[in-house]
Amino acid sequence: MATVGSATSETPFFSMGEGTFKIPMTLYAENRRRLVENMKKNGHSGVILLKGGEQTTRHDTDHEDIFRQESYFHWAFGTVEADCFAALDVDTGKSTLFIPRLPEAYSIWMGTIHPPARFLKRYAVDACQFVDEIPTVMAADYKGKTIHVLYGRNSDSGNFAEPASFKGIEEFQVDRDSLFPIIANLRVFKTEAELEVMRYVSEVTSAAHVAVMRQVQVGWNEYQMEALFKFHTYNYGGCRHEAYTCICACGPSGATLHYGHAGAPNDRPIKDGQIGLLDMGAEYSCYCSDITCSYPVNGRFTQDQKDIYQGVLDAVIAVETAMKPGVSWHDMHHLALKTVTEALIKTGVLVGDAEEIIKSQLAAKFMPSGLGHLIGLDTHDVGGYLKGFPERSTLDGFKSLRTARDLEENMVLTVEPGIYFIESQVNMLLAGSEFDKYINKERLEQFRYFGGVRIEDVVLVKSDGIENFTQTPRGIDEIESVMSGGQWPPAEDKYPQLKRQFTTWRSAGLSQ
Amino acid sequence: MATVGSATSETPFFSMGEGTFKIPMTLYAENRRRLVENMKKNGHSGVILLKGGEQTTRHDTDHEDIFRQESYFHWAFGTVEADCFAALDVDTGKSTLFIPRLPEAYSIWMGTIHPPARFLKRYAVDACQFVDEIPTVMAADYKGKTIHVLYGRNSDSGNFAEPASFKGIEEFQVDRDSLFPIIANLRVFKTEAELEVMRYVSEVTSAAHVAVMRQVQVGWNEYQMEALFKFHTYNYGGCRHEAYTCICACGPSGATLHYGHAGAPNDRPIKDGQIGLLDMGAEYSCYCSDITCSYPVNGRFTQDQKDIYQGVLDAVIAVETAMKPGVSWHDMHHLALKTVTEALIKTGVLVGDAEEIIKSQLAAKFMPSGLGHLIGLDTHDVGGYLKGFPERSTLDGFKSLRTARDLEENMVLTVEPGIYFIESQVNMLLAGSEFDKYINKERLEQFRYFGGVRIEDVVLVKSDGIENFTQTPRGIDEIESVMSGGQWPPAEDKYPQLKRQFTTWRSAGLSQ
Repeated sequence: MATVGSATSETPFFSMGEGTFKIPMTLYAENRRRLVENMKKNGHSGVILLKGGEQTTRHDTDHEDIFRQESYFHWAFGTVEADCFAALDVDTGKSTLFIPRLPEAYSIWMGTIHPPARFLKRYAVDACQFVDEIPTVMAADYKGKTIHVLYGRNSDSGNFAEPASFKGIEEFQVDRDSLFPIIANLRVFKTEAELEVMRYVSEVTSAAHVAVMRQVQVGWNEYQMEALFKFHTYNYGGCRHEAYTCICACGPSGATLHYGHAGAPNDRPIKDGQIGLLDMGAEYSCYCSDITCSYPVNGRFTQDQKDIYQGVLDAVIAVETAMKPGVSWHDMHHLALKTVTEALIKTGVLVGDAEEIIKSQLAAKFMPSGLGHLIGLDTHDVGGYLKGFPERSTLDGFKSLRTARDLEENMVLTVEPGIYFIESQVNMLLAGSEFDKYINKERLEQFRYFGGVRIEDVVLVKSDGIENFTQTPRGIDEIESVMSGGQWPPAEDKYPQLKRQFTTWRSAGLSQ
Repeated sequence: MATVGSATSETPFFSMGEGTFKIPMTLYAENRRRLVENMKKNGHSGVILLKGGEQTTRHDTDHEDIFRQESYFHWAFGTVEADCFAALDVDTGKSTLFIPRLPEAYSIWMGTIHPPARFLKRYAVDACQFVDEIPTVMAADYKGKTIHVLYGRNSDSGNFAEPASFKGIEEFQVDRDSLFPIIANLRVFKTEAELEVMRYVSEVTSAAHVAVMRQVQVGWNEYQMEALFKFHTYNYGGCRHEAYTCICACGPSGATLHYGHAGAPNDRPIKDGQIGLLDMGAEYSCYCSDITCSYPVNGRFTQDQKDIYQGVLDAVIAVETAMKPGVSWHDMHHLALKTVTEALIKTGVLVGDAEEIIKSQLAAKFMPSGLGHLIGLDTHDVGGYLKGFPERSTLDGFKSLRTARDLEENMVLTVEPGIYFIESQVNMLLAGSEFDKYINKERLEQFRYFGGVRIEDVVLVKSDGIENFTQTPRGIDEIESVMSGGQWPPAEDKYPQLKRQFTTWRSAGLSQ
């Protein structure tokens, strides 16, 4: 495998080894520079103190989950090790990484104990000391100054960031309010270095989707698609973590939007005639992809499957054609909803006028999810509902949007419209409801066990439109071709509206 | 794939689908019966209240790790869902599962909301109610009686089990002390139903090891062995979780006993001439395997590799030949240590008398780990140092043993001697130390970058010896044969001392 990535041999970098992407440590230096600039611009001085993620154990046991860095900390320092802290001087920009002081026994069980000098070089920071030295460093350098710590509410989980602390912090001026909105908003806009990593992880994800698409067999259990996807992203892309739990939903399972969790663990058999909804994304050095492919598991669409699928694809194309800076994400959701509603009318499930059906909130029964979300170091990335930006809607479907912001250059979002025949919703509609006049019950009944279709791309907002990081087959013709052994990436792109950028499949072998 | 397992079509069971093991719910009923019996025998009455594991999210985000049940709760109820509680009446044996009351939106995002009646049937319990009904149930049935909750220290982690609680529990008599030692000790002894699951997961693990052994190539990165292992255990065995972080250590990496963690993530290139140490184990429905294979990555042992490997294999054979009820685990550790010390003398690294070298604590520099540990629902299973059993040694190596108990029938343990050339220890010895007279420095220098060899089996203590659940190649001849395409399992077992039970490879295709 060839070496890929933008780091040169002189730059310190992260990679998972030969053939995987090299992330230059300048990526993090740039983020720190942006952070310091923005703090200053908002009139702040003093020092930022961040707390890295901690190594955890499961319940009361010594079982250690594989550590994954806390995302804000990763954004600023790129450190793979657990239990670190870091300081960033707002006035001078000086960065200091604090690493845990390891006991002698570590060298036997966990590996060589490296001195701070090595971390200083590896992470290209200005200083590296031990965590137990934080009180001394703070007392020496920041007495009488302000320590800015991270505290704020994540709008997807409702949970709060855990502010850094140390013995004696109460003797300092601590500001818990200023840092969070500034750093969260910076994370919304990706730098070119970050975009390169995100292109890579979506390329790896796309290629693994294609591999699954080519190999899936009727008679498998759904989780075998998960097993194959994970193998490809890790083996060929060096992605040890997935960005989220794989959703491998075939047939009726596809109507459960977050299928795949422990209570519904992709454990159903794959049956002939089903349409599969595969929502899987890899993660590389904490940067996420999030791609959904829907296709018939036997490789051939039925007419009903074509009708539903094409409606969702039309929504993707409509949205991706319209997306550009200044456009409201709410309006994009409406556009997608209208497109899929028209498809449901065309195929005979719904009756009436699309706008009227949306207004009645019936359309949201078939697409209860938001059109898409910001993505970056978290799959559901931060900054969606910061103060001063549009607030969350109360309308069904719209209220599921993880941001209501207008689009701006260098935002990366998913576009993921869908049509779902959800058991509880279908039962309610078939039983008779306020929506009776819009429903063709006989036709709806035929879709009772259909499941769902979702198509999900990862796209970058550019000055004049978008760039699509997703490189999977999308057209019905493309999917049927690839599933019967056709070439991919294609010799000619028949869907230029999707703005897919076919790369040279740097992770060779991925789609084989 | 054929259906495997001991559940009949009438018994409620857990499985990951066609071709994977069916675990009958009677397994958990039997554990509950044993628990009630033992509580009574110790003079207790009232009710046991257990708390299941909670669904967690990462840091402040909405990222949900795939839920894995808390092990004590799993042992008694086998429930895959998060956020449950359960009660077990000590006097009548009545079992009640408490499930979370799910909001309406769950049916859209997570799947059908099933009524308690379905859980009652699925888990074959006597009653099923909602978690929010616990206070009412407790008040109605157990006023004035004792509620036994789980509280005690895990001797591997030092962490404490989290006792169940509910609003109003302070009005009851709560006993935090009695349950823990009884249930922990019961978990030490596996029932026949549990042993069947453990045989299955070790079979799947063995077959995946063989697949990796056959496919590994010089030039891979170490983590590609992890990717392949995980693929095989999941795709063919339905094992979604690994029992612990995969250790894929080639060459010098092998000297780090717990290599593979986030700070040393199996990311080195595999080089010609290295010996690999692959410590990987799958988990099926929370039951663990833990198997280590060591072999030259190019498929051919050098003389030095043969000397070290054979010493470790001789230790495995010596221990597994001697193991039977009544034997002290301490003595087994000593036996293994003596065998590997003799190998180090024979190959010229050490000079002198083995017993004297052990006594000086020098031998433990090359084998600092304990010989093995109890295994079951946790890789490092509970019950190792309960009150009334032998206490932890203070001697190097011996103090790493996770139990010092005498062997008893139906214990399952790992046997995992090793020889490690650990950088910090080798440096210390080469620099000159109190051990000078036992060291041939010139010879030791030749092993500086060797890494390590570990061989790890999962074995059951039976009335007259052991049964080995491990089915991997162990002899040098076996390994070289399999790595050059030879048949496995073998036509004839040349190592009957290892007591391997070759099965019909129920998960077909695993070693292909």
